[in-house]
Amino acid sequence: VARPSRGYAVGVDIGGTKLAAGLVAADGTVVSRTRRETPAHDGVAVMELVVEVARELAGEAGPCAVGVGAAGMIDLDGVVRYAPNVRWADYPLRAELAERLDGPVTVDNDANVAAWGEFRLGAAVDAPESMVMLTVGTGVGGGLVIDGSLVRGASGLAAEFGHMIVQEGGPLCPCGNRGCLEAMASGNAIGRAATAAVQAGRIPDGSPLSGLPEVSGKDVSRAALAGDPAAIRLLAEAGFWLGVGMASLVNALDPQIVVVGGGAMESGDLLLEPARQSLEDRVLGRRYRGLPPVVPARLSDDAGVVGAALLALQQARAP
Amino acid sequence: VARPSRGYAVGVDIGGTKLAAGLVAADGTVVSRTRRETPAHDGVAVMELVVEVARELAGEAGPCAVGVGAAGMIDLDGVVRYAPNVRWADYPLRAELAERLDGPVTVDNDANVAAWGEFRLGAAVDAPESMVMLTVGTGVGGGLVIDGSLVRGASGLAAEFGHMIVQEGGPLCPCGNRGCLEAMASGNAIGRAATAAVQAGRIPDGSPLSGLPEVSGKDVSRAALAGDPAAIRLLAEAGFWLGVGMASLVNALDPQIVVVGGGAMESGDLLLEPARQSLEDRVLGRRYRGLPPVVPARLSDDAGVVGAALLALQQARAP
Repeated sequence: VARPSRGYAVGVDIGGTKLAAGLVAADGTVVSRTRRETPAHDGVAVMELVVEVARELAGEAGPCAVGVGAAGMIDLDGVVRYAPNVRWADYPLRAELAERLDGPVTVDNDANVAAWGEFRLGAAVDAPESMVMLTVGTGVGGGLVIDGSLVRGASGLAAEFGHMIVQEGGPLCPCGNRGCLEAMASGNAIGRAATAAVQAGRIPDGSPLSGLPEVSGKDVSRAALAGDPAAIRLLAEAGFWLGVGMASLVNALDPQIVVVGGGAMESGDLLLEPARQSLEDRVLGRRYRGLPPVVPARLSDDAGVVGAALLALQQARAP
Repeated sequence: VARPSRGYAVGVDIGGTKLAAGLVAADGTVVSRTRRETPAHDGVAVMELVVEVARELAGEAGPCAVGVGAAGMIDLDGVVRYAPNVRWADYPLRAELAERLDGPVTVDNDANVAAWGEFRLGAAVDAPESMVMLTVGTGVGGGLVIDGSLVRGASGLAAEFGHMIVQEGGPLCPCGNRGCLEAMASGNAIGRAATAAVQAGRIPDGSPLSGLPEVSGKDVSRAALAGDPAAIRLLAEAGFWLGVGMASLVNALDPQIVVVGGGAMESGDLLLEPARQSLEDRVLGRRYRGLPPVVPARLSDDAGVVGAALLALQQARAP
């Protein structure tokens, strides 16, 4: 068993149903790992579970840095202002963990953590300066690296790219606004568009989507990957909007690379290729710049654990 | 006469008709200044004029850092890829100047230069970390500071906030896309909307805009400042869109402050107040963050000269 030391950190990825954690080396290798049910109804129990898992993974060798990623709005002090999955509200997660663990503790948004993992050791490893990452799952999240550093913003709420407005007055977003990127290109948006298409009779009988009372983004992905033209068109539409959002981001930030992760990436190029096209059509000064590559995330299921651990190592210069 | 030294730089602001330049102290004081016609039809003549003016301002004391701001697309090496006002195309302005001047030379986009001035000594002086600046003139430009540094991007084209897409498929933008922020909220967009309103008979006879064959953004500002309700409504519409763009920027970047400069700011709160409202309605997590203040630029006519000089001082640590 590897001995936790200067080169190791524990990464914890708190999901709505599962909590994944690992002891991670500085090169991203997951030395050991564990997986638990998230006691999401009880915020204190989740915090205590993180402590337990971190101690267990760090092992007898003692303290090491701990990085935690969780969905939600997390401020610069690691206070979870709001979490969609766990019963936390203005909960000082970082401080509570730091009181119980001996090493330094970092707490950040799940998308930021995944972005940091991709930047350091994943899809953006050849882009040393800057990266825009979009995570397309049920919603659309983001992470931003500029000058080699994760951008957190004045309140810890930077990189909420899903709530850039691409179609003012458009479809309602869960955030309450209309026409956010998340309302046009998330897994939920794809499912909603597909359901509407079925109900409007715009899906041919031969499609696996036809007749479904409610279609999920996953249904669309699956049907598209099996070659269903109607599902492929629905993904192309979402990809189009994703590219519109990317164009805003590239025009605003001029990053070296754009990385796309999240559950919707199971569709791969069926989503990304229309996005690339739509980005290329809209990016300013196409003649005067290289278009940044638009690539899928690489760390997949480990992104949260690895990213959280690397962020903890980075921020803590941990023992 | 002040002696150019470690604490001074020459700032040059190349406009389409006028070239303004000054010897600027590190505290932003313009020690001496000059103003010339821009020989815009002759790119080499403009470069030579910058050399002449810089030498003259630096005076007998000899070399000091020179900062130049110009409209257009300027890459990280100071090559002017494209300029709307001066006949330059892929012109290595920085290298040509550096060959002729003894001090270090910095060349950047006019909006970046103005943003740096506002960040260091203008409207954002109390925001030490991060700032989003929008310049609303004939077009919409931008400047971005993160972690105390000007963000230039991978190709030098960052902060083109005017080309974030807020209404995909909307009005045509000079860049060729539709529904860019510049197409909705620039001085030209205001003029175009006003002209259309006059032609459609939606402007009452009492308005100073009524009967004008073509209305400019300036006409609208002037009429609004004189109290004309129709002109005030036109500015409010542009301000609304400006706020939509700001919401995308605040959700993406979470800056400490938003600064708005450019010619359209002569309308002041008639433009900014609707923008603030529209931003507030759209910003994510209003309960979990302070809204960044949205304030007018302060350096006014000197912004280009002062910003260019300060940027040169910053980048050169010049003699």
